Amino acid sequence: MTDRSCLAIVLAAGEGTRMRSKLPKVLHEIGARPMVAHAVATARAAGADAVAVVVGPGHDKVAEVAGRAGAGETFVQSERRGTAHAVLCARAALERGPDTAIVLYGDTPLVRPATIGRVREALAAGADVVVLGFQASDPTGYGRLILRDGTLEAIREERDATPAERAVDLCNSGIMGFRGSVALALLEAIGDANAKGEYYLTDAVEIARARGLATAVVIGGEDEFLGVNDRVQLATCEGVFQKRRRAEALAAGVTLVAPDSVIFAADTEIAGDVVIEPNVVFGPGVTVASGARIRAFSHLEGATVGEGAIVGPYARLRPGAWLGRDVHVGNFVEIKNGRVEDGAKVNHLTYIGDARIGAKANIGAGTITCNYDGFGKYHTDIGAGAFVGSNASLVAPVAIGDGAWVGSGSVVTKDVPADALVVARAHMIVRPGWASAFRARKAAERAAKK
Amino acid sequence: MTDRSCLAIVLAAGEGTRMRSKLPKVLHEIGARPMVAHAVATARAAGADAVAVVVGPGHDKVAEVAGRAGAGETFVQSERRGTAHAVLCARAALERGPDTAIVLYGDTPLVRPATIGRVREALAAGADVVVLGFQASDPTGYGRLILRDGTLEAIREERDATPAERAVDLCNSGIMGFRGSVALALLEAIGDANAKGEYYLTDAVEIARARGLATAVVIGGEDEFLGVNDRVQLATCEGVFQKRRRAEALAAGVTLVAPDSVIFAADTEIAGDVVIEPNVVFGPGVTVASGARIRAFSHLEGATVGEGAIVGPYARLRPGAWLGRDVHVGNFVEIKNGRVEDGAKVNHLTYIGDARIGAKANIGAGTITCNYDGFGKYHTDIGAGAFVGSNASLVAPVAIGDGAWVGSGSVVTKDVPADALVVARAHMIVRPGWASAFRARKAAERAAKK
Amino acid sequence: MTDRSCLAIVLAAGEGTRMRSKLPKVLHEIGARPMVAHAVATARAAGADAVAVVVGPGHDKVAEVAGRAGAGETFVQSERRGTAHAVLCARAALERGPDTAIVLYGDTPLVRPATIGRVREALAAGADVVVLGFQASDPTGYGRLILRDGTLEAIREERDATPAERAVDLCNSGIMGFRGSVALALLEAIGDANAKGEYYLTDAVEIARARGLATAVVIGGEDEFLGVNDRVQLATCEGVFQKRRRAEALAAGVTLVAPDSVIFAADTEIAGDVVIEPNVVFGPGVTVASGARIRAFSHLEGATVGEGAIVGPYARLRPGAWLGRDVHVGNFVEIKNGRVEDGAKVNHLTYIGDARIGAKANIGAGTITCNYDGFGKYHTDIGAGAFVGSNASLVAPVAIGDGAWVGSGSVVTKDVPADALVVARAHMIVRPGWASAFRARKAAERAAKK
Repeated sequence: MTDRSCLAIVLAAGEGTRMRSKLPKVLHEIGARPMVAHAVATARAAGADAVAVVVGPGHDKVAEVAGRAGAGETFVQSERRGTAHAVLCARAALERGPDTAIVLYGDTPLVRPATIGRVREALAAGADVVVLGFQASDPTGYGRLILRDGTLEAIREERDATPAERAVDLCNSGIMGFRGSVALALLEAIGDANAKGEYYLTDAVEIARARGLATAVVIGGEDEFLGVNDRVQLATCEGVFQKRRRAEALAAGVTLVAPDSVIFAADTEIAGDVVIEPNVVFGPGVTVASGARIRAFSHLEGATVGEGAIVGPYARLRPGAWLGRDVHVGNFVEIKNGRVEDGAKVNHLTYIGDARIGAKANIGAGTITCNYDGFGKYHTDIGAGAFVGSNASLVAPVAIGDGAWVGSGSVVTKDVPADALVVARAHMIVRPGWASAFRARKAAERAAKK
Repeated sequence: MTDRSCLAIVLAAGEGTRMRSKLPKVLHEIGARPMVAHAVATARAAGADAVAVVVGPGHDKVAEVAGRAGAGETFVQSERRGTAHAVLCARAALERGPDTAIVLYGDTPLVRPATIGRVREALAAGADVVVLGFQASDPTGYGRLILRDGTLEAIREERDATPAERAVDLCNSGIMGFRGSVALALLEAIGDANAKGEYYLTDAVEIARARGLATAVVIGGEDEFLGVNDRVQLATCEGVFQKRRRAEALAAGVTLVAPDSVIFAADTEIAGDVVIEPNVVFGPGVTVASGARIRAFSHLEGATVGEGAIVGPYARLRPGAWLGRDVHVGNFVEIKNGRVEDGAKVNHLTYIGDARIGAKANIGAGTITCNYDGFGKYHTDIGAGAFVGSNASLVAPVAIGDGAWVGSGSVVTKDVPADALVVARAHMIVRPGWASAFRARKAAERAAKK
Repeated sequence: MTDRSCLAIVLAAGEGTRMRSKLPKVLHEIGARPMVAHAVATARAAGADAVAVVVGPGHDKVAEVAGRAGAGETFVQSERRGTAHAVLCARAALERGPDTAIVLYGDTPLVRPATIGRVREALAAGADVVVLGFQASDPTGYGRLILRDGTLEAIREERDATPAERAVDLCNSGIMGFRGSVALALLEAIGDANAKGEYYLTDAVEIARARGLATAVVIGGEDEFLGVNDRVQLATCEGVFQKRRRAEALAAGVTLVAPDSVIFAADTEIAGDVVIEPNVVFGPGVTVASGARIRAFSHLEGATVGEGAIVGPYARLRPGAWLGRDVHVGNFVEIKNGRVEDGAKVNHLTYIGDARIGAKANIGAGTITCNYDGFGKYHTDIGAGAFVGSNASLVAPVAIGDGAWVGSGSVVTKDVPADALVVARAHMIVRPGWASAFRARKAAERAAKK
């Protein structure tokens, strides 16, 4: 039996001063996804049916990003008066009476959904308050979870701990779950009679015990609770995230020739039997089908790669790039908002923007779709089996018919019928001896200067 | 005294289910070379004069790759009935009576030839059966080599080992050598009376001892015997391979600015006093001469780089690229099947395919050799000292004479004599005020839409 | 009280045979700066007002590089007779009577200026001879600093050390400081009565003590004293250098998504709140302003990047590239000696050399500034708000006026007035059915060949 309704409250109001950034801390990214979106996505993946986010004043962008990630509502914490105070900013959500409420953090992006799932299970099994802890390899600085007979007696901050308590390595992650029916009462009972005059969420444990409520501890992996307060920690979290994603890809039957040189985004989807060569970067929104090969130095964002396609080296797929089966995209090629159909080839030094390339078409080196006139973007349509010669400029809007042939160096400004040839090319003028005369003149000029 | 004839038998019939791949396991690559080719090449380098490969049914591609790597014949193991059964699939090769026979594995690509050489030496020194072992940092799971008075008493599988035997860290690599005159008799004496009903090659040790034959152990390095059963192990082997190659390059007087970012192929040859900048990938078949510099983000396959040449950054040399002395190939340049002679420069955004570029020629930015018409590939010949202007398209077959000059943006479709100028260029038409009118019109259209 | 005048003497005469290089050892680079320049720069940064460099015979290039880095004079050590002999090659500088003299090494590039500063402080505090030492994690091979009652009694070479002395892990870095008034006398007192017949600088300690002078030890970090004798050590030093620079960048509020994949030069300056994506290489002379983003696979040398600019992926900025505020430079774009003013965009497959691009101008894909005619380089000037169509060739010297519009594929050879349109383009010729006839002919040819 689990809860029927679960509210996740994501605390994301921190200043993040140590980030030394104009950007609110929780908008810094891990796996090309803002940290607050990780927390929201984790809550959703763990089954929370409502996610409320508590943001700092003026942090509209945080609210917007959290909303896109699946948060239902946001609350502003105007003053920073501690974690319990922050949670109570979402009082309206708590008052709707969820079965359970779980508090997460916008700067702790690596928590696994399954771990949050176990918090929900502990609540379903009878606990009123659940604390998520971890065995710390170095517990210095963390609050310790003090257990007696297997139940949580207290969360002891390091400064208040006895030497024996300091030896405890089971630490508090800060993430807590509450039975919905007692959550508000417990939170309201928390006081600010402490050195900093703040309301600490951890005090809920002691209050719960005093009231005879049941507490429980769930233990997660240490690396799930890495928090981010500065750029070193941001880089550390990113490293843990990447290592995790690389291991998942290898386990799924993806070849990574040099795993440490491949950068994944949070939502990258790579099918089995794909080969990823060294130095590949995945931005958000990429799907790669089975049998594809992503060659070295490729960069993909918002792109779909079909079965058996070969991408790169040095291919850049931008949002809206869609490659069909067995497509080849080669070096120094950029594709943006372009559909490249089955078996087509775009192998060298090409810019494809706002275009469709029909099946088995061949796009020559140096081809440019001229999709922009300084005001709008226009579409280029290239038919199946068309052959576009090198260094061609296709001035959109324009259509090249199926099987048509575009001569090298042509600037195509009007539609070309199927199976037609189009050439726009000046005649060659040859001036015999010109080059030797030119060199002689230049040499003379140089000599004259000396 | 060593053997006069040495047969290597490479077992390469495994399914490789855990690779989760359509490709047979032994065709997955380490250092851009299929694993089975590593095993064959190691045997050859260790002096085996005959290499037989045992492949799985339907694995014609494995046989083909092994053959190209130097295997003389392949045998199919139709049923999987254990390693001894696999070796006996090559019975015809054993019956030819080699002095020695050594069993290697197609999924163990890191064995050093010198180590196999020591197996041959042990056989030459009088052993009838030689087992190649290694000190395991974690012996769990491996068969242990049980020695008594310095000689090999048995190979004990972990499940059959006593606690004392489990404490042994000398483990069985699986690689074995046999005196040719006893090999067949020993192999035929191996039975399948065990839990799995398979014929185990390791049983040969016990049988040999029972017959009063001499056994010996040769010890190699642990990292030589890493086997590949899944993509994690494939990546691990690749990592060990790369580390080895980087160390060899540094020892040979090559500068690697960031060694971990350079990827070598199995056959990469780099001379001393070459500088390799960060993020360089070598595919198969590359040779770089002394004094050359390979700049960051370069990708080379099947290419030869001459003395003092500068390649990159972002240069892609494909098979058949041949660069003479002091050649410069710059950024976003692709060269395929192209000979670039001494002192020539191809510095920017260029595609050279199926071409010769004469000494000291200068190829302008954006130049494309149009070598393909959808059916065949054609040659472009550029003479010594020629100057090709930017954005030129050279439509092959075509020849630009020595010292000729090609104007920017020209499409050259016919041969150009030596020392001539060729220009194919439309006249400039200037329409004063057009751009401001255009902008005004666009702005009006936008306003109208609102 | 510190010294009023401090002479640094950099010993840089070593052969460097183990580098296996034509280049003198101290010219090999760390952080894209020759090692000898590091030593000179460190001395300068530590406040030395004169730097003398002792170079090997024929090493004019070392002298030149050292001079550019701030060395005032160089001395040639014609014979290699030990470190004291090398220092005395700079006798003329010592005879000018500096308050203090500090001996540094051209092959030890990682010493921190602050550490040298502490040597100066120790001299100022009364020491006559200061030895810079470090706690070695593995002292094998180093000379040990033998202290008694906190003062330096001797420097004991390993071969002469007692077992108790070998257990000492405080080692000699080789760097020493001298009170100027005693330096020459001490150096001249050093003899060559030892196995190799060389004059060892370390002997100065014993001589000083015998004369009742005060000796002191200053302790630095072990990684400061890594020396370079071969390419492995060069790579190791580079790795330590890069790790240091990455940590500094993170601490300064720079985001490094994958710190280990970013390569800095010694003089790279990155402002806070810059994001550097994976796989970025900085050559010498780069400055990046706040809010800029350097995207993956970018390569910058001698470039200035303005606030909020976006560079890459795959952008190459070469010396003289200057990007204003909010400039966008995109993929496969090379900029050399080019000024790109505020808000201008150069997004795809472009070569800009010797040019100015006015504010908010838009440069289309495939644009090439044709700046070279085989003899000289010429300037291209593009006005503010100009629009250059794709695949245009701008033949320098040429000026495109403010707000002008260049049609796609045009070769522009003459100046274009402001707000004008320029087009240089051949008419399109369409031949219906040509392509299908061509294919039929080719197919027939193929069939005939069979």
